[in-house]
Amino acid sequence: MPPREDAVLSTMQDVPLTVTRILVHGTRVHGRSQITTWTGEAEPQRRSFAEAGTRAVRLANALRDDLGVREDDRVATLMWNNAEHVEAYLAVPSMGAVLHTLNLRLPAEQLTWIVDHAADRVIIVNGSLIPLLAPLLPHLRTVEHVVVSGPGDRAPLDGCSARVHEYEELIADKPATYDWPELDERRAAALCYTSGTTGDPKGVVYSHRSIYLHSMQVNMAQSMGLTDRDTSLVVVPQFHVNAWGLPHATFMTGVNMLMPDRFLQPAPLAEMIERERPTHAAAVPTIWQGLLGELTARPRDVSSLTQVTIGGSACPPALMQAFDRLGMRVCHAWGMTETSPLGTVARPPAYASGPDEEFAYRLTQGRFPAGVEARLTGPGGERLPWDGESAGELEVRGPWIAGAYYNGPDAEPLRPADKFSEDGWLKTGDVGTISPDGFLTLTDRAKDVIKSGGEWISSVDLENALMSHPDVAEAAVVAVPDDKWGERPLATVVLKEGSTADFESLRAFLAEEGKIAKWQLPERWTIVTAVPKTSVGKFDKKVLRRRYAAGELDVTSL
Amino acid sequence: MPPREDAVLSTMQDVPLTVTRILVHGTRVHGRSQITTWTGEAEPQRRSFAEAGTRAVRLANALRDDLGVREDDRVATLMWNNAEHVEAYLAVPSMGAVLHTLNLRLPAEQLTWIVDHAADRVIIVNGSLIPLLAPLLPHLRTVEHVVVSGPGDRAPLDGCSARVHEYEELIADKPATYDWPELDERRAAALCYTSGTTGDPKGVVYSHRSIYLHSMQVNMAQSMGLTDRDTSLVVVPQFHVNAWGLPHATFMTGVNMLMPDRFLQPAPLAEMIERERPTHAAAVPTIWQGLLGELTARPRDVSSLTQVTIGGSACPPALMQAFDRLGMRVCHAWGMTETSPLGTVARPPAYASGPDEEFAYRLTQGRFPAGVEARLTGPGGERLPWDGESAGELEVRGPWIAGAYYNGPDAEPLRPADKFSEDGWLKTGDVGTISPDGFLTLTDRAKDVIKSGGEWISSVDLENALMSHPDVAEAAVVAVPDDKWGERPLATVVLKEGSTADFESLRAFLAEEGKIAKWQLPERWTIVTAVPKTSVGKFDKKVLRRRYAAGELDVTSL
Repeated sequence: MPPREDAVLSTMQDVPLTVTRILVHGTRVHGRSQITTWTGEAEPQRRSFAEAGTRAVRLANALRDDLGVREDDRVATLMWNNAEHVEAYLAVPSMGAVLHTLNLRLPAEQLTWIVDHAADRVIIVNGSLIPLLAPLLPHLRTVEHVVVSGPGDRAPLDGCSARVHEYEELIADKPATYDWPELDERRAAALCYTSGTTGDPKGVVYSHRSIYLHSMQVNMAQSMGLTDRDTSLVVVPQFHVNAWGLPHATFMTGVNMLMPDRFLQPAPLAEMIERERPTHAAAVPTIWQGLLGELTARPRDVSSLTQVTIGGSACPPALMQAFDRLGMRVCHAWGMTETSPLGTVARPPAYASGPDEEFAYRLTQGRFPAGVEARLTGPGGERLPWDGESAGELEVRGPWIAGAYYNGPDAEPLRPADKFSEDGWLKTGDVGTISPDGFLTLTDRAKDVIKSGGEWISSVDLENALMSHPDVAEAAVVAVPDDKWGERPLATVVLKEGSTADFESLRAFLAEEGKIAKWQLPERWTIVTAVPKTSVGKFDKKVLRRRYAAGELDVTSL
Repeated sequence: MPPREDAVLSTMQDVPLTVTRILVHGTRVHGRSQITTWTGEAEPQRRSFAEAGTRAVRLANALRDDLGVREDDRVATLMWNNAEHVEAYLAVPSMGAVLHTLNLRLPAEQLTWIVDHAADRVIIVNGSLIPLLAPLLPHLRTVEHVVVSGPGDRAPLDGCSARVHEYEELIADKPATYDWPELDERRAAALCYTSGTTGDPKGVVYSHRSIYLHSMQVNMAQSMGLTDRDTSLVVVPQFHVNAWGLPHATFMTGVNMLMPDRFLQPAPLAEMIERERPTHAAAVPTIWQGLLGELTARPRDVSSLTQVTIGGSACPPALMQAFDRLGMRVCHAWGMTETSPLGTVARPPAYASGPDEEFAYRLTQGRFPAGVEARLTGPGGERLPWDGESAGELEVRGPWIAGAYYNGPDAEPLRPADKFSEDGWLKTGDVGTISPDGFLTLTDRAKDVIKSGGEWISSVDLENALMSHPDVAEAAVVAVPDDKWGERPLATVVLKEGSTADFESLRAFLAEEGKIAKWQLPERWTIVTAVPKTSVGKFDKKVLRRRYAAGELDVTSL
């Protein structure tokens, strides 16, 4: 309903929420906070927020005056986590241009496609990543400038068609002030592509508003809750959903940053924790698993680090307990590129009745904050209750959640029906349950769930149950077509060497009290020598489904 | 600059920041958090967020269906801090109407003027405040409905022209759902008048956006930083700048509320702290001074209460130290009705070098958060540096800061030039300094500062220095016209009984090393038997200036 003609007008100032505000505020008010970047040498690089902020201003001047960057131009980064990358995070959006973080783990072909799709005019690259960039450059049609920062052989760039600049030379003599444009808070600030497993990569365009609100959320006491007394070890890459929003959030409130640059191996991570004494860290579980091995082999004083935010995928309970014993409290968070990414944080509620219940809450993906509305959609499109039992696809809505994908500079945004609901919610592709008090537990990916007679069966639950059998080395479960039920599970099992287990005994094992409901037990079974895997080591269920469809699997029906 | 035609569009969802979102989220996700209201009886009233939120929905239904409240209508409250008042805080803005909190400390004439100016259609009143409301009702031309909540004799309302309803009866059978309107976040949500010392009261209209952002700010770790493990004792009245934003902020994140209702005397406050064990409290210094006396006379276990936010006026250092000794850490905050109110919070920075420097930081008004831009304007309108020494009038800008005053339902907002700069900043009327790291120290009110030859002299500094003289009982310093300097200070002194101090010796005392700069020393002196005071006990400098102008004071020139 539109407001009445005699509506009461708010008398509040209309001030936009912008990255510029974060830059100006952090530089001035938190000028003494530090960004420490690991160098692999005796001393790390130390830079105050005052210095980094001023260098960001110089960078904005250089980009505009020397490189001709205008508002809305895309400026890409191919960089590790370091102070210069933070400077780009602040400078590029503040001048009205769009920061495009490139994922250096992507195959060359995808990187080329993404740079081209975004029409990046500039790439800022770390010297150590020149070997990755140089072979791509001849194929990058829109890139006019390459700016190189940090150590690394420049020779591979010789003769490339783009103009090559040295970051430090470029910003050296530039003014320390910039007449920042007054930007609409809904303007584009940053661009990040998801490395989707199917189809072309999809770009998410964060706005100034979404980054500002997300930064506030990260800083709320119930989220990461950091202050200027904290130092955050930002292991999660800046090319991966803006390092979970930490660079902007920490610059907003003066939280010190400890940046590992390219030193992401367990030994240097352990060393930087011991020497620089961060209080907080953010990383995916695999990095943390490696760190645990290192700390077990060579114990170090890591007592400063009391809070570890883990996301990306679930942290195995045993890993969480191992870190608890080291005094590092792991806190799950869930999110994705499309959610900026903070979607949930797993802080147990005050009323958790003891260590076991606390731990159970910590194993969930976490609780939704006020800024993230959530709902579950069942197999038939129906809304499911928050009862901790009904599993459905998670859909979310909020001011830092994507409602579309970027479709190139001259095209309308994309809103594929499998990713966005008609009323504009993001379909996350994750399947799970929500407890009455708003804690999310994910059980499967929507594309892997088995839709059987209007109910959903979690492939992950079946796999975990199977893999707890002493004779099973690996097990993958996929949906296969079924005349009566629509879909039914196919169990694909790799037996341990010398095992003589048969399908009946495995099925009986699954049927044991409390493991798997009877109607979910697979009828179709097959033995394979290895489960096919994707390039990042996940089960490649597409391949299994294709082999089944082609009749290439030797399937037994029970 | 408008965006280019080929501007990159953000792909974020456009989701408004509304009080509705706070209501729905808190009710559902933090349903087990509690609002505890003191009753003066054996047991307080305990209500979960789930109950309070559901009752708020019922209230919205009742207001619309039984009382005919439409969007933009003003619904006033004349209430203490209690669960029902929180319900009104949530229900009224969510339905698109405007919550108008009435200050029950105002003189009857001002209250009448304010209700009339706001054109309130409904007043929700606590039974205990009926004796205050009933005599006004015949004069309130716009009020059609009075809703009474809680104990108190209803008889004085008999025969009044407004329809009288019982809160509990009104909401009893109403639906627990409401089809909330999708409100623009810039729509009016709440209205609060400042009890300005000069002229008519001025109304500030908070928007949904400003309340939502302010709630996030309150919840940030560097502000109050509360979580669902905390209980906040909300002593600051809900009729006073939305109780510093606490009801909305706590409902957003599940922080428990402890509400004192009308029991604001030191003894019941001490009792509720001992029995209900809040972790946080928010109050003005005078309340806390009284509590200290009570705890000294009758010690109690107040160990739960570790954080006390004090605002409204500066906390005397001795009071701060006394609370430190009790384990309650006082944290200064500065704000005003026009700033929602959170403007600064005095958390000492991590680099404060020891207890003395920490304490010095804590005595300032505090540090600006990213959402509050600040600047100092000198006597000639020039911008002053943040050097901790240059004193100027504080001007602020931000999304939860007023840019105008309400001017009644059918009129354009007011933007008086003495309150708002041409570029839209709020002139706070406070004079002070800002340190290079963004800490504000207030030294005077702009209207009391002495503008002498293009420089400012703080009346408060002179008064404090004078009152530290052993013979001085009270001292007030006001500006008087001066041909050469524009203005000069007039020192008005009340001597202690039997004192023989003369003006020369007082002047020499002020001139002692480090007290007052020589050029600031008053030439004009007068003895009075008492400094005139306002109704709230502050020095009434208007009266002094008038008496001086009328030649009623016996002034000596040195």
